Amino acid sequence: MKRVRVLIRPKKGLLDPQGRAVKEMLEEQGFKVGNVVVGKMVELDLEDGEDVRSLVERFIVNPLIEDYEIEET
Amino acid sequence: MKRVRVLIRPKKGLLDPQGRAVKEMLEEQGFKVGNVVVGKMVELDLEDGEDVRSLVERFIVNPLIEDYEIEET
Repeated sequence: MKRVRVLIRPKKGLLDPQGRAVKEMLEEQGFKVGNVVVGKMVELDLEDGEDVRSLVERFIVNPLIEDYEIEET
Repeated sequence: MKRVRVLIRPKKGLLDPQGRAVKEMLEEQGFKVGNVVVGKMVELDLEDGEDVRSLVERFIVNPLIEDYEIEET
């Protein structure tokens, strides 16, 4: 088995209301904050030969509205 | 500014219903899947001197029920 980490972000240009909310809240608290992105992380143990990209695109992310990054460890 | 990534997981031993749902769904689809964790990712641009750990514990995670990891890039 291999451990796979998928990092998922709202596609650039699409709304990220959670990110905006976190940024505004931190600024109200007095912090200087640049861009904030709130996304998801999914970690899975998969078989060594598994086609991770295909599995992720079919079942884990919505490629229409999400970008993703796969890290294998 | 520095870019900070916070990876957030349900604390070990606490329920991760999303992770369980993903695992079961993939197994129904015929995949062999080990442990699955569904968590969150928050990326923030913060000032260089910022005490990231304190900010994260006060405003981003709930340390009672979540574990987290900070990656600075």
